[in-house]
Amino acid sequence: MGKKKELEARIDRLKAKVRALKGKLGESAPAKAPATPSKAKNPISPLAPAAFPALPVIEGVAFAAAAAGVRYAGRTDVMLARIAPGASLAGVFTTSATRAACVLDCQAKLADTVDESAGAAILVNSGNANAFTGAAGQASVDAVTTAVADALGLPANRVFSSSTGVIGEPLPHERIVAAVPGLVDALDAEGMEAAARAIMTTDTFPKGASAEVETEGGVIHLAGIAKGSGMIAPNMATMLVYIFTDAKISAKLLQKMLSRQVDDTFNAITVDSDTSTSDALILAATGKSPAAEITDLRSKVAKDFEAALRGVMMDLAHQVVRDGEGATKFVEVRVSGAETVADAHKVAMAVANSPLVKTAIAGEDANWGRVVAAVGKSGAKADRDTLRISFGEMVLAEKGARVPDYSEEAASAYMKGQELVIGVDLGLGAAAKSVFTCDLTHRYIDINADYRS
Amino acid sequence: MGKKKELEARIDRLKAKVRALKGKLGESAPAKAPATPSKAKNPISPLAPAAFPALPVIEGVAFAAAAAGVRYAGRTDVMLARIAPGASLAGVFTTSATRAACVLDCQAKLADTVDESAGAAILVNSGNANAFTGAAGQASVDAVTTAVADALGLPANRVFSSSTGVIGEPLPHERIVAAVPGLVDALDAEGMEAAARAIMTTDTFPKGASAEVETEGGVIHLAGIAKGSGMIAPNMATMLVYIFTDAKISAKLLQKMLSRQVDDTFNAITVDSDTSTSDALILAATGKSPAAEITDLRSKVAKDFEAALRGVMMDLAHQVVRDGEGATKFVEVRVSGAETVADAHKVAMAVANSPLVKTAIAGEDANWGRVVAAVGKSGAKADRDTLRISFGEMVLAEKGARVPDYSEEAASAYMKGQELVIGVDLGLGAAAKSVFTCDLTHRYIDINADYRS
Repeated sequence: MGKKKELEARIDRLKAKVRALKGKLGESAPAKAPATPSKAKNPISPLAPAAFPALPVIEGVAFAAAAAGVRYAGRTDVMLARIAPGASLAGVFTTSATRAACVLDCQAKLADTVDESAGAAILVNSGNANAFTGAAGQASVDAVTTAVADALGLPANRVFSSSTGVIGEPLPHERIVAAVPGLVDALDAEGMEAAARAIMTTDTFPKGASAEVETEGGVIHLAGIAKGSGMIAPNMATMLVYIFTDAKISAKLLQKMLSRQVDDTFNAITVDSDTSTSDALILAATGKSPAAEITDLRSKVAKDFEAALRGVMMDLAHQVVRDGEGATKFVEVRVSGAETVADAHKVAMAVANSPLVKTAIAGEDANWGRVVAAVGKSGAKADRDTLRISFGEMVLAEKGARVPDYSEEAASAYMKGQELVIGVDLGLGAAAKSVFTCDLTHRYIDINADYRS
Repeated sequence: MGKKKELEARIDRLKAKVRALKGKLGESAPAKAPATPSKAKNPISPLAPAAFPALPVIEGVAFAAAAAGVRYAGRTDVMLARIAPGASLAGVFTTSATRAACVLDCQAKLADTVDESAGAAILVNSGNANAFTGAAGQASVDAVTTAVADALGLPANRVFSSSTGVIGEPLPHERIVAAVPGLVDALDAEGMEAAARAIMTTDTFPKGASAEVETEGGVIHLAGIAKGSGMIAPNMATMLVYIFTDAKISAKLLQKMLSRQVDDTFNAITVDSDTSTSDALILAATGKSPAAEITDLRSKVAKDFEAALRGVMMDLAHQVVRDGEGATKFVEVRVSGAETVADAHKVAMAVANSPLVKTAIAGEDANWGRVVAAVGKSGAKADRDTLRISFGEMVLAEKGARVPDYSEEAASAYMKGQELVIGVDLGLGAAAKSVFTCDLTHRYIDINADYRS
């Protein structure tokens, strides 16, 4: 029963494999090593959005991008954002014990008591992470942020920097410093897309998202950009996110909203389980909207604003996964029925990070047994006999065994989709958590086996 | 300085990549899907030992293998080991929350108060893991172990079983039961290599190891077999190990030694971080050696025996890594200077499981920055400024930065070796831990993207 269809499906899968191998062979055999890595050789992710979105201008913020030659040739690799006086800032950063000098610097500056009447600026370079570079690393941060502060007339403790690229190589900060005057001259309220392009490393598309909040006093706008693919971009200098809004809100409230929304958005994505030394997310609110100041987290406008912020964060987080190195499938691992959210998170991450689950997805193999095994190894409380595994709306296994009407054809057909939902219900409680990931393909190994060439 | 050599090295690496891709294309493009997976298409690991070792006969143990047709055609897939009356048994098993029915059965039987005057038996099948098979799974275990008990005149609670293969499919236990009489007839003290072959799944070579302990009363022999590649074999039904000795020793002492040696051996290997539902290690001591009974853990003979046991366990554990799916490099991650062994273990596992470290090793790229990042994400106490990273004897980075005389050529040359040691000294304390792993290559994805076809 269904045996012929199963065989045909298998032949289809094998044919697809052969096509993929042939395609890869064609694209990975350069006659000689190129002198400079070219981004053009990195095909755009099949999961990319159709186009970069139209982002609203955020009053009080201007952007510029330039080609400073940090590492890449023939493309922009630094971006500057100037934020008007009176803005509130908030940030979240990698928890890595070996985090980069610029991350430590941002954290120290955000913890400072600041003169809110001053403006602020953010300077980001791609091509070099300035991580594990010792005292020279901090000196580079100082050189870059001081140059920007001087050029814009800002206190140095209001200039934030990020670096993304190779770890352990000294940052040629003099090239960035040399680019600062040009960046300042080019500042443009409509320069956000150019900024998004300048911070890319192996990203295959620039990432942006926006939202609007209607209030009685007027509209609040939000717009953000991101680079990287969670923990998967080469050199580990991975996720950088900058979100801007014209809302009027204190730094304290802004930080509170940001911190509590990061768990379900950026902390809920994984490409390859490798955490960066450089992850940084900075949120700036200029207060230029005519809307009234947000002062009470329980007010309708605060809730609407926080929902819009969450939406922008989730959108950018998903785009990071959609640009996961080598990704061909976007996967939500939706865990429910856990005793605690921590347990739900453990299970979701164990499934999303399992190389065996991720290679099965790449092969369009409905191998739900590997999901069971990942649940088992997660360390969370789980009971084989209350566990339910589903793909999309289709329940595959429950009460400790495969469902009686299990259909290999139906499960295999589901796996051919580009957007997949793997459901795990632990049957123990009411806590839930979704995590977003992609598959593990040959291209991931192509990109990472020799990234420094 | 060295620029030309760097470029040449890069060209070498690219050429190797092209060769690898061409090779893969040749072997992965079957004209049509084969009706039955054939092990012959799985080339022997380049890290395999030259030959299966000559194992000593362990008096009191006999083996048989047969082709029961559980899943594979044209190869043996069940093995039986009969252990003489009076033997002591010990075991360690997966801690997975979704462990297989046979694992739960083994654990219950080993916890039982047993009649030591009875003998024992172990029945293992490959091709089906009998995991997540509900009540039918336990019924299958009962059917198989009862058939063996009846045929050998043993109590059923002295017959242990393991199953390795696909998760979630009912075990066709009647095929195994039908093979039992033939297995019993074929029992042979010299049948250990045949047993090692019968328990293979995607293993590319059978795994065996032995040791001898000289004592005043006579020689004690140990011999063991293993299957799988830690957590990497497809279907997650991974590591099975059976070790036999003619030592005279109580089950209690035997279990104590086994439990404390497992941390540095089998619990110190990882191929892909995926923990099995089926891992099992059973150790049987027949007491047939003329050597005196081991009764005091502090005696010289006990220490010698435990060291020999550790040696056999370590040898088999390393063979499992050497047969890691797609492995081309054998890697020791040697962590020292940690505050606690738990921290050293966390760091070693974070490095050994990092897909970015493993793909860099596959690409022979001396990307020590990824090691730094893996240390940072491990969750263990680490300080950037006391960290030292070395490859073999070569220190690459210390005191928070690259060493002044860092040589990319020397580091790249080291990566071309087949046996690598990545050293991480945390500079914080005296605790150390080594973990053993392999690289992550295209072949891993080939094997796992469509394992059920």
